[in-house]
Amino acid sequence: MDKKPLILVTNDDGITAPGLRTLIEVMNEIGKVVVVAPDSPQSAMGHAITINSTLHCDQIKVTDGPQLEYSCSGTPADCVKLAVNELLDRKPDLCVSGINHGSNSSINVIYSGTMSAAMEAGIEGIPAIGFSLLDYQWNADFSQIKNFVKQITIEALNKGIPKDVVLNVNFPKLKQEEIKGIKICRQARASWVEEFDKRTNPMGREYYWLTGTFINEDKGEDTDEWALHNGFISVVPTQFDLTAHHCIQQLNTWSL
Amino acid sequence: MDKKPLILVTNDDGITAPGLRTLIEVMNEIGKVVVVAPDSPQSAMGHAITINSTLHCDQIKVTDGPQLEYSCSGTPADCVKLAVNELLDRKPDLCVSGINHGSNSSINVIYSGTMSAAMEAGIEGIPAIGFSLLDYQWNADFSQIKNFVKQITIEALNKGIPKDVVLNVNFPKLKQEEIKGIKICRQARASWVEEFDKRTNPMGREYYWLTGTFINEDKGEDTDEWALHNGFISVVPTQFDLTAHHCIQQLNTWSL
Repeated sequence: MDKKPLILVTNDDGITAPGLRTLIEVMNEIGKVVVVAPDSPQSAMGHAITINSTLHCDQIKVTDGPQLEYSCSGTPADCVKLAVNELLDRKPDLCVSGINHGSNSSINVIYSGTMSAAMEAGIEGIPAIGFSLLDYQWNADFSQIKNFVKQITIEALNKGIPKDVVLNVNFPKLKQEEIKGIKICRQARASWVEEFDKRTNPMGREYYWLTGTFINEDKGEDTDEWALHNGFISVVPTQFDLTAHHCIQQLNTWSL
Repeated sequence: MDKKPLILVTNDDGITAPGLRTLIEVMNEIGKVVVVAPDSPQSAMGHAITINSTLHCDQIKVTDGPQLEYSCSGTPADCVKLAVNELLDRKPDLCVSGINHGSNSSINVIYSGTMSAAMEAGIEGIPAIGFSLLDYQWNADFSQIKNFVKQITIEALNKGIPKDVVLNVNFPKLKQEEIKGIKICRQARASWVEEFDKRTNPMGREYYWLTGTFINEDKGEDTDEWALHNGFISVVPTQFDLTAHHCIQQLNTWSL
């Protein structure tokens, strides 16, 4: 192994997204960087993978650093699969995904392409972190959080992320000096209440836009939502064993 | 509330899939059925939702039962959101998804459109079950498992699925009389090792097909993989709180 860690960088907003470019810049200070990212935005793709159509993946020329970069036609999870199984010579020491333009806290983790890429790396046995900033704007100010991204990444490399766990890191939309610190949290119990905006197209056919309102009914002060609303960075250890182990005994009382 | 439960039926293989038609047939024996399913196959869509384009949804005429049916251009999770927030007069008493053509046991739950539809219902507070048969064929013999689907559904309605939990039910590809019973299980710790089939298109550009091999290194006899390989139906209680609660203490020792 090189002295420098091999770091796979990906995202869901696409290879040109400012959040990804910031993440590459930070990772170039820490290790040897290979980028495999979607060629177009893939937000809210969840853990989709491409099994019924083909994938394209092309190396692209970059001038902003020593990293290798590949642009891929697939989903975030596809990008990680392609990187690990086709493009890289060896398993990376770390996979980082993001920095997402928008929150992946609470139930958003389920819909998140950013986190699904990190989870895919975790499933493949690679330590992984997803980073997201609570600012949906394309020109969000990622410079405010660069130092924290670096600090968390270096600590994760030093201490080792627990097995079968992926870190979900969310940053409040604040100036660096306004951020109060970093909190280890649980995922808040919240959900979206959808409102479909029903319209009629020029041919007279009805269609819908999905919109919604985020509702957090979880008042716990140990949640990611509490941390973010109180000026802290949230770090949620996230797992891909979805078993509700605490319910197995109860279900065994059913007449099945 | 009607005497009969209101049951929302969806899937990821699309509204014409034989697995869905079987599920509708069984649910018509139990309750009042409304079907909102994708207009085309959506396998491996994970928990994708449609936020950057529009959705179409049309009621279709059916002749095989009393159910109402809607065909939707979106993902499985979109179908549930549309059903609950736009199409149904009240929250359904149950959402069932499937019967999927192919396994959603072990790590497959993460990629599954079938289970993401059930999970979406669970997030919205609706008791939900995903059903899958370990047979990828379009003409798989779903008649062998109809009685078990009915039994599990009725027991779930009677006993009540635990809060914030969704059932992931997988059936072995066996004759009804060969099935040994139903086991409550945990998700086996397994993963896919991908192999990308690299080809060149008629224009000379390289492309990939994602293929892979399922590797189960988990020898536990309490897993879904063990149950299925030993002739049992597996029922895994599955949750959408992804927090690795057991790691929070460890992460609090990090220098952050």
